Amino acid sequence: MTETTGYSGSGLVLVKNPHLDLLEEDVLYHLDLGTKTHNLPAMFGDIKFVCVGGSPNRMRAFAQFMHRELGLAGDAEDVADICAGSDRYAMYRAGPVLSISHGMGIPSISIMLHELIKLLHHAKCRDVTIIRIGTSGGLGIEAGSVVITDTAVDSSFQPRFEQVVLGDVVVRSTELDKELAEELLACSREIPDFPTLIGHTMCTYDFYEGQGRLDGALCSFSSEKKLAYLRRAYDAGVRNIEMESTAFAALCGMCGLKAPADHIPTTFPSSNSVKMVKTLIFSL
Amino acid sequence: MTETTGYSGSGLVLVKNPHLDLLEEDVLYHLDLGTKTHNLPAMFGDIKFVCVGGSPNRMRAFAQFMHRELGLAGDAEDVADICAGSDRYAMYRAGPVLSISHGMGIPSISIMLHELIKLLHHAKCRDVTIIRIGTSGGLGIEAGSVVITDTAVDSSFQPRFEQVVLGDVVVRSTELDKELAEELLACSREIPDFPTLIGHTMCTYDFYEGQGRLDGALCSFSSEKKLAYLRRAYDAGVRNIEMESTAFAALCGMCGLKAPADHIPTTFPSSNSVKMVKTLIFSL
Repeated sequence: MTETTGYSGSGLVLVKNPHLDLLEEDVLYHLDLGTKTHNLPAMFGDIKFVCVGGSPNRMRAFAQFMHRELGLAGDAEDVADICAGSDRYAMYRAGPVLSISHGMGIPSISIMLHELIKLLHHAKCRDVTIIRIGTSGGLGIEAGSVVITDTAVDSSFQPRFEQVVLGDVVVRSTELDKELAEELLACSREIPDFPTLIGHTMCTYDFYEGQGRLDGALCSFSSEKKLAYLRRAYDAGVRNIEMESTAFAALCGMCGLKAPADHIPTTFPSSNSVKMVKTLIFSL
Repeated sequence: MTETTGYSGSGLVLVKNPHLDLLEEDVLYHLDLGTKTHNLPAMFGDIKFVCVGGSPNRMRAFAQFMHRELGLAGDAEDVADICAGSDRYAMYRAGPVLSISHGMGIPSISIMLHELIKLLHHAKCRDVTIIRIGTSGGLGIEAGSVVITDTAVDSSFQPRFEQVVLGDVVVRSTELDKELAEELLACSREIPDFPTLIGHTMCTYDFYEGQGRLDGALCSFSSEKKLAYLRRAYDAGVRNIEMESTAFAALCGMCGLKAPADHIPTTFPSSNSVKMVKTLIFSL
C-alpha cells in the first residue's frame, strides 16, 4: 500500500485523523502544550516558518540569530524555551519563525512532528514552510558543503519511508519540494565562497553500523566493504547521510506543510547555511 | 543471518570491532568524552551499575536519589553532568552507579549504547549490570504496575532486532537475563503494595501510529482495529510497549554487559520502581 502526498488548497496545515474532532482536549504531551491549557491560535497563529534540528542548543542559537536579523524588540539572549516544562524537546520563536529541536533519529523526530503538526493545525496557521537544518555526513563532496535535499532515500537508496501501523508496513513518499530547493540554492548563490548543491539525502536508523562507520562498539565489515557501499550510495545520487529525513519528508508531505524542504549542512552551525535560510525567509 | 549473544568469561565489557585497536584516539563524540582527553579508567573503572532512561531530568533525579541512599559525601543536588559539553545526552554518577539519558527511540539509544559500551571497555570495567528504567505504556495490567522485561519483541511480537548493516538486514536476539529479572521481582516483593510482573515488552519505531494511538496527526484505523491489535499483542505475552527495548537487549547482549535487564515502570519516576532497583543494587 502506497499512500499519496496531499496538499490543502487553503494553505492550512492538515491533520488526517477523524478521531481528533471527537477529543475534548488535545494534549501535546511531549511539547508541554495543549488546547485547554494554552491559547494556541494566539500563541502561534502567525507562524510562517518552522526550522527544526536535532540539538536544543543549536536551535536556540538559530532563534537568537533570527531575533537579531529580524530586528525584534528585546534581548535575543532572552528567548524563552516554550517547551520548558518538558525536557524532550526545546522550542523558541523569533517573530514568524519557530525553531524546534527534535533529538536524534526517526522515532524522536516523528513524535515531535505529530505534535507540531497538530499544534499548527489547532493554531490555524496558513502557508507554513518547514526546513530541517541539522547535521549530516557529506558523501564525496567538498568539506563544508551544504546539501539541499530534493529526495530523501532509505538505506537501499529508495525514495520511501516504511511506517509500521498496527504491525503492518505502510510505504510513504519522501519527495521534497523541488521549487523550494531551487529557491534555497538561489539564496546560497548570494553568499560568497559557499559550496551548495542539490542532491539526495540517505536516512539511516543507525549511526555506526548503519552508516558504515568503523569506530562503533560493533563492526563486522571491512573498510573495503564500507567504501563499496558508500560508492553505491553516491552512484544512486546520495550526497549526504543523516537519520531523520525520510520521516520528515513523509510526515510533512502528508499534512500539507507548504513546500517542505530538507536542507542539511554537513557541519552545523555553518554560518553560511544559516544565512541562506535567513535569506529565504526574508524573500518569501 | 542470525548473530549470537556473547558473554566474556572475564566479566569485561566486550567490543566486537577489530578496527578499534588501530585507532590512535577514540572520541566518544556524543558523550563529549575521549581516550586522549579523559582518563577513562580513573573516571569510570569502578562502575558496576548503569541505569538508563529517556529523560535527562529523570536520570539526574535517579542519580541524586542513589547519592543519598548510598550516603555519599557532598550534596546530592550538586551531581554534575559528565556530558555537559554535549546536549545530546546527560550522564551522572553516584558511587558505582552511572545514570545516563538516551533520548527517545532506537536510533537515539543506539548511539548512546555504542559510545557507553566503548567507554566501559576503555575504562576496563568488570561485571557491569545495566538496567533501563524508562517510561512505557502498560497493556492489560493494573495502573502503576511495573513490568520487568524477560524478552523484548518487535511490532510483530517476534523476539528479534533487525539491524541494517551497509544496507543488509542482520537479525539479533533480544532475550534478556532471566535470573536478573527474577532477582528484580524478588526485590519488588520487599516493597508493600507494589504490583510487579515479568512479561514481554513490545518495542516500536513510532509512538502514535505504531502503538495504535488515536490522537496523532495521522490515524487511518478504527478504535476496533486498534483494540484487536493490542489484544493480539497481549495474547503473545506483551505487557507493555515502549521504543528502545529491542536495541537495548541486542546491543547489551552482544557486548557482554553482565545480566542486561530491561525494567520498565508504566509510570516513571515511580518511587517504588526506583526503590526496587536500589534494593537490587544493594544486594549485588
